[in-house]
Parts: sequence; C-alpha cells; structure tokens
Amino acid sequence: MESIRRSQPQDFDKVLSSMCTEPHPLAQEAAAEFLATNPGDPATYQAIAELETKAINRLSEVAGLANPHGYIASGGTEANIQAIHAARNRANDETASGQANVVAPASVHFSVNKAAEMLGVDLWIVPVDDDYRADLDAVTAAIDTDTVAVIGVAGTTEYGRVDPIPALTDIAHDAGAHMHVDASWGGFVLPFTGYAWSFADAPIDSMAIDPHKFGRAPIPAGGLLAREQATVDALAVETPYLETTSQATLTGTRSGAGVAGTVVAMEELWPAGYHQQYNRQMDNTTFLADQLANRGIEVVTPTLPLVTAAVQPATIEALQADGWRLARTASGHLRIVCMPHVSRTSLEAFLDDIDRVRPWLLVTADSLLPDTILLDVREGGGFLG
Amino acid sequence: MESIRRSQPQDFDKVLSSMCTEPHPLAQEAAAEFLATNPGDPATYQAIAELETKAINRLSEVAGLANPHGYIASGGTEANIQAIHAARNRANDETASGQANVVAPASVHFSVNKAAEMLGVDLWIVPVDDDYRADLDAVTAAIDTDTVAVIGVAGTTEYGRVDPIPALTDIAHDAGAHMHVDASWGGFVLPFTGYAWSFADAPIDSMAIDPHKFGRAPIPAGGLLAREQATVDALAVETPYLETTSQATLTGTRSGAGVAGTVVAMEELWPAGYHQQYNRQMDNTTFLADQLANRGIEVVTPTLPLVTAAVQPATIEALQADGWRLARTASGHLRIVCMPHVSRTSLEAFLDDIDRVRPWLLVTADSLLPDTILLDVREGGGFLG
Repeated sequence: MESIRRSQPQDFDKVLSSMCTEPHPLAQEAAAEFLATNPGDPATYQAIAELETKAINRLSEVAGLANPHGYIASGGTEANIQAIHAARNRANDETASGQANVVAPASVHFSVNKAAEMLGVDLWIVPVDDDYRADLDAVTAAIDTDTVAVIGVAGTTEYGRVDPIPALTDIAHDAGAHMHVDASWGGFVLPFTGYAWSFADAPIDSMAIDPHKFGRAPIPAGGLLAREQATVDALAVETPYLETTSQATLTGTRSGAGVAGTVVAMEELWPAGYHQQYNRQMDNTTFLADQLANRGIEVVTPTLPLVTAAVQPATIEALQADGWRLARTASGHLRIVCMPHVSRTSLEAFLDDIDRVRPWLLVTADSLLPDTILLDVREGGGFLG
Repeated sequence: MESIRRSQPQDFDKVLSSMCTEPHPLAQEAAAEFLATNPGDPATYQAIAELETKAINRLSEVAGLANPHGYIASGGTEANIQAIHAARNRANDETASGQANVVAPASVHFSVNKAAEMLGVDLWIVPVDDDYRADLDAVTAAIDTDTVAVIGVAGTTEYGRVDPIPALTDIAHDAGAHMHVDASWGGFVLPFTGYAWSFADAPIDSMAIDPHKFGRAPIPAGGLLAREQATVDALAVETPYLETTSQATLTGTRSGAGVAGTVVAMEELWPAGYHQQYNRQMDNTTFLADQLANRGIEVVTPTLPLVTAAVQPATIEALQADGWRLARTASGHLRIVCMPHVSRTSLEAFLDDIDRVRPWLLVTADSLLPDTILLDVREGGGFLG
C-alpha cells in the first residue's frame, strides 16, 4: 500500500470546480460494503439487483416518472450516450433511410458530442439565447426528417440554466423525435424550484439524472430513466453465459457501491434533506454572487447553485496556485459550482484570497488603477493582471 | 439506511458463476477512501490522477507493454468497446469507403456485439476449433479490405481458452487491421503460464485487462492498454469546461475507488501474490475437474482456472435452489469459474451437494438407473433427471 500511504484524496475545502461532492456518510458506508457486488450480473448478485430496483423507483419519484424504467449507469455520460443510442435504434426500426441526426443547444454537455461521434449520428448544435438557454426557433429550424432526438438540459454544466423543456418536447414530438432531458447535475435541486423540467412537467421520453452529484451518492452512480420500457429494450444485447438473458447497459460489470450508495443517500435525504441542501446552497450562491458583484466583478445572474463571473485569467491562475480548484466556461467565465461541500466558510476564505491577489478592486470597482500600482502588485504576487 | 440494514451483499461462499471476486482487503480499504474522487477530472482530483498513472504503469508490466498508454476503464466491456472504437476511427482516417467490419471468434465476449451494434461496424463471428479456440483459417477467410480489427481472446469467458494470439496478429496486420486482445479475465493469470498472449509475445495493438477480476481490485476497475498513444488519441473528445482539454474515456466521471484499489492490489500482489493465487486456483481447478470426472460427468479439460462439464439442467437447477450461484455456457455446459474466493472447502461442499441431488451416480457412473428409482428421487427431491 506504499502509494496510498503517500497519497490522500483531495480535501474538498478548496474544490469549487467539480459537479461531484462529498457523499452522505451513510451512503459512503453502504458503498464500501457493496464494493464487491455486480448489479450487471443480477442472478448471481441478487441483493444488489434488488437495491437497484429500489434506486430506480426512488429516482423516478424525484423525476416525476410514474412507471419507472431505467437503470443505474456509471454517470451522466453513459446515460446521455444510451438515450441517443436508444433513439437512434428506435428510429432505425421505423425509417431505414437517411443519416440520423440529433439536435441540441450549444450548452449541451460534451458527452453528447462523444455519443454522436461514437454512434455515427450527426449532431446539430444550435445557439442559445441571451440567457444561455436553448433557442426554440433555432431548434425548430435545425430539425429535419432525419432527426431522431432533441436534447434539452435541465441545469447546464457551464451556466446552470434550465432549457424550456415543455416547448422543446412539443417541437421534438411534432417531428417524431425522441425528447431527452439531461438533468445529470440539476435533477436533485430542480424539484425545489418552479422550473418545468421533469417527466411530470412534459411528456419527455428519457432523462439522465445523477445520484453522484447533488444526490450525495458516491461515484459511480448515474441514472438513465425512460418513460417506456421499449427505450431500454432498444439497448439490449443477448448475454449467452449469464443467467439473465439480456443486458441494456453500456458497461457490463457495474458498480454495486454506486447502487447501494444511491439507495441509502436517497432514503436519508429525499425529499427533506435535499430540500434543505438546495436552500443552503442557493443562499451560498446568492452570497457569492453578491460579494463578487460588490468587488466590481461582472456576475452572470445565477439561477441554480452555480456562479459564473468575469474574472481575469491571471487572477484565476493566482488562485489556482493557492490551491483553489477552479474551472472556466468555454467563453472564459470563472465558474464556481456550489456543491454541498462548498460551505459559507470556504467561500469567505475564497473571497479573502481574491482580495489578496487583486487588491486594487478594494480601492475602486469601476476604473483601472494606475499602472504603477499594478506593477507593484505584480512584483509582489507574481501574477500578471 | 433501512434498505441496507435489511440487505447484505451476497456471501461469496457459494458463488461459482462470477468472474469477479473478493477484492484484496487493503485494496478494498483504499477504494473506500477514494470513493469521492474522480479521475475523469484530473486537474481537480490530482491525487487520484497520479494513482491512475501508477495503475497503468503496473498494468503494463503485467501485459508486457514497454511504453504504457491507456486508462483505467469501468471494465472489460468498456475496454473492448473503446478498442474497436479506436480501430474504426483510425481506419476512417485512411479509407473513407466501405462499411467497416470486425472479425472475432465465436468465443468472443458479448461486449463485442454491443460495440459493433453501437459503433455501426459489421461483426463477422467465425467458428472456433474443436478445442474452443479461434480457427485461423476461418479468421483469414472472413477478413476483407473493410476489416478494421481482429479480436483474439486470452482466457475466454465460457471455456477459459487462449486464442493463438501471435498467429492472429500476423493475419490482422497482413490485412492492415488493428489487433485487439481481450484478456479481461485471463490477464492476471496468464503471466504464470506458457501461453503467448501479451504485448511482449506479439505486436498486438491493444488489450483489455481487468484489475477487478483476478487482479483483486474492487469494482469498477478495467484496463485499456495500447501500444501507441495514437490509439488513445483516436478516442479523444474536447472537454470545454474542464481544466484538461480532452478526454478519451467512454464515461466522463470515473471511479477513483477502482483506481486506488487497483494500485494497492497490484502493489500487494504483483507478481508473487498473483502467482501463488494462480497455483492455488489451478490446483482447485484440477481437483474439481477430477472429482466431476470420477462421478461419471463429462468434463472439458481445463486450461485456466475454469471448469466446464456436462451436468444435467435439472441437477443445476437443484443446486441453484440450494443457493449455489451457477452459470451455463451457450451450449449448456455447467461453467464454474475458480476465482480466488473459490476455496477447496467450498468445492468440497459443492461436490457433496451434487452427490445429494444426483445420488444415482454414486451407484453407477456408466449406466442409467431404473426408472423406478429415478421416480423415487424425483418425488423426494423435486427435480426432473
């Protein structure tokens, strides 16, 4: 165990970039207990197979799905791939001609690019509106007779936005296409908002929703949910040597730890615990957004627990050098995900460090300081702007 | 935690059907510690990213790969899918015409069917020889100019056979195709045999090799190894919001538990511990094969720690009713995988139960008993033959 003795998992105190978080302690305990189980072989590993059914039933409650179909996946990427995979296969049954395509907003997660490349379907990426949400006119214009699926995001990776899911669903279904919602990140906070995003809000066909993000399950625990069993069946391959006869998952052997952790986290937290967590993290989000704005930093108004702001690259790099784990959007915004491990104390320490590496904005928020002072700061702190 | 309090992971004592096993205790401990880490986001989760490099380096030692390239996958299915995916993509760069195909023996794991269906490549399944190994003439005959990959199995799922890897590699390379070896199950026992199976034995292009099988890492821990970085690069998609810029894995968020468990298991067991484990399980395999043969049961001569035998379906069902987890091959053989958790004591208990549910073979191994006695047994034991 020499490597591990010298290596510790990161402390979450300074992790502001991740959509994963500290699992619920009891979920972690359950996961450790089930590390040697394989829900991919349900006849051999019966206890974990039963827990997977429980996990899907609970997950369906969160997502407003009355008749649960689906499985616990390795994460949102697998769930997105398999949703597009199912849509492609179901469309193939109906129309043999044409090169299948998928229509998705520019805010869609890169797993959709992965899926399209892999599955050999074209991907039409359409613009988002001024508030980073799918532009309905652009989606409508991109759809053609070969469109097999439309994707909407309920909690985008970069800006935490919720696409207009019911309207997208109408557009998709008018074109005979499958409607998939990627709620991988947003699924465990959206039930406590007014957004229309779920199976209960629109006749969507499938959803990605990850217990291992806001759901507080340990990694790996994603969820693929489907309104119809036919969507899951479209993914099935025969399994000659297992006692069960087919398998609809992308991976074969799967993590029992993730399944057991999901069941325990949801038994502990759904709905009250997740609601409290949402309230707390939205308070932290508002606090951080206000504090950044007070420092003259342009902040994109947050709608879910995620703050994006126009912070200079050099400042971000200086903060990273101090140990903060930070990510940027493709357009360069600093992006802070207020996951459950991100406490008020941690955000206050982060703001203190911002003030230390860019002290001039304590003096004036609206104008640049004279070059001489900037130069002094550069010499002292080793950064560029 | 109500569900988990009522649910326990299966006891491994009666699991004879699985290619997974009890992890090494220290590997399990390390995995539990890293359950909240994500090697899919290496800039944020740096400690686990470093451990993944160690894991790939060690895995490459086992597989005879001098310059390690690859990653820790969710399992053999992902590794097989990604190998075919890379072969397809690399071939596309060279030849734009034709419908790509893959050639594999009938013994290939069903994940290859999954891969072909998903990736839109044709799959030519060719017969095996009388000893369940890839028939070289059949492989040669199936290959055409659109063949992008040939697959050989080093330790087949059903009969534990090792395909003639060097000859298959020659055939593949003569046709300009990628040579992939599926050593998902066999990879941690084959170094202690005389088989030619590894990167050191033939110029193979990629390999699936699973730490979570004989490698004693917890689930999920598979391995994709490649001779050239270009194979891994052929899988990469851009990752706009992560600090790293591309990702070659099939899944996005990945299990740090599997990675940490892999490193610890290999530090503890490679090579001496795995060698001892191989010797012990081959002894158990020989013991079981002999004992079954002594009972007049036709046994397929084992070559790796896996026993297949012609046991009546009703006997298998009676043993399953007693709690034994058993699997059958597609052709109906009982298939017992002598994984590290399968002890001599457990096999003796299994043989006792065989004797109990089919007592007539204690009387005579070579002839059927009179119907009247069979009927008596049926009435007492509730089985059919």
